[in-house]
Amino acid sequence: MKIDPATISPAQVYQLMIGAIVPRPIAWVATQSSAKKDNLAPFSFFNGVTASPPTLLFSAVNNREGVKKDTVRNIEETGEFVVSVVTESQCELMVRTSRAFEYGVCEFTECGVDKELSDRVKPFGVKGAPVIFECTLEKIVVIGEGPLAANLVIGRIVLAKIADEVLVRPDSLVIDSEKLEAIGRMGGDDYVRTQSIFSIGRG
Amino acid sequence: MKIDPATISPAQVYQLMIGAIVPRPIAWVATQSSAKKDNLAPFSFFNGVTASPPTLLFSAVNNREGVKKDTVRNIEETGEFVVSVVTESQCELMVRTSRAFEYGVCEFTECGVDKELSDRVKPFGVKGAPVIFECTLEKIVVIGEGPLAANLVIGRIVLAKIADEVLVRPDSLVIDSEKLEAIGRMGGDDYVRTQSIFSIGRG
Repeated sequence: MKIDPATISPAQVYQLMIGAIVPRPIAWVATQSSAKKDNLAPFSFFNGVTASPPTLLFSAVNNREGVKKDTVRNIEETGEFVVSVVTESQCELMVRTSRAFEYGVCEFTECGVDKELSDRVKPFGVKGAPVIFECTLEKIVVIGEGPLAANLVIGRIVLAKIADEVLVRPDSLVIDSEKLEAIGRMGGDDYVRTQSIFSIGRG
Repeated sequence: MKIDPATISPAQVYQLMIGAIVPRPIAWVATQSSAKKDNLAPFSFFNGVTASPPTLLFSAVNNREGVKKDTVRNIEETGEFVVSVVTESQCELMVRTSRAFEYGVCEFTECGVDKELSDRVKPFGVKGAPVIFECTLEKIVVIGEGPLAANLVIGRIVLAKIADEVLVRPDSLVIDSEKLEAIGRMGGDDYVRTQSIFSIGRG
């Protein structure tokens, strides 16, 4: 089947993209407004950019009215955010924080997510997350305009916090995928476990 | 364990990032130089950006000598690329194309990957890939400079080709994750199958 995306609705294009671009890592992004209101929301258009400088990104799409997500609004105000890695045990909590809350509502409190104080930035990490990246804003690249335009948030990792239990050895910086138990995002309401791992070297 | 990325090597930061930002989707990216030489290489710093306009991105990091990847060089020359989705059955072939070949070497021929003619752009898709996105360049955002700087390639999807077998129904545009059999990228040399799927609605 061949589909010119210009001939179908944005909602159909979205279904197609989230069904085909899988599995996606999940960034559970915490921010704080300049009035100190905390926000927490998951994003799966998320990935690394490069290790030098240590950079990651996520895309936050405006809603149908063209209104920016609270996450983007807060990052524009403060230049800071924290990415927590989501595991199987916290998946339901994470999904709860994905609902649309009024601006200013704190998802940590509203959804019962425990906070962990950060070292270098004001927003909190998620307590119990095996990896937490404290980040400062590098730049926001806007793609498209109005409703469904994307704010591509590009950030610098200023501190990484890793639970010893997910490392290959206590003294290494190498994460053991099977111990991490991260989950990925698939199409629709689907998530995937990362337990069925295999290895292929480049030779 | 708390790590300031400025205190460890870029190679260590990279290990950490690819171990923590998981599972990552894989873009098998085909390009063609202005002299009609084909290139094919996989990228896992890859994701969607928004459905309106239909946009995706991948990050291609320069090598240690600060030299751009052939993929980026070709896209700068022609403004076109094709993303094929990688399944379990084509995983070994994909890994073969990830080795560093001389500029101008065609990975399709060199690694035994069958080509599929594209409709809207010159680069080929991978024959047998369940989903193929034909793309035109929107913009390249450079992050960092010199060795390991990233070229963030942002592209517009101009045509999507989907194998009927991976759709929920023959007449729908919804992809069935279990039929797709996409694989994801983990840390080190690890990959993950997408068979252990569960569903959580937003309620």
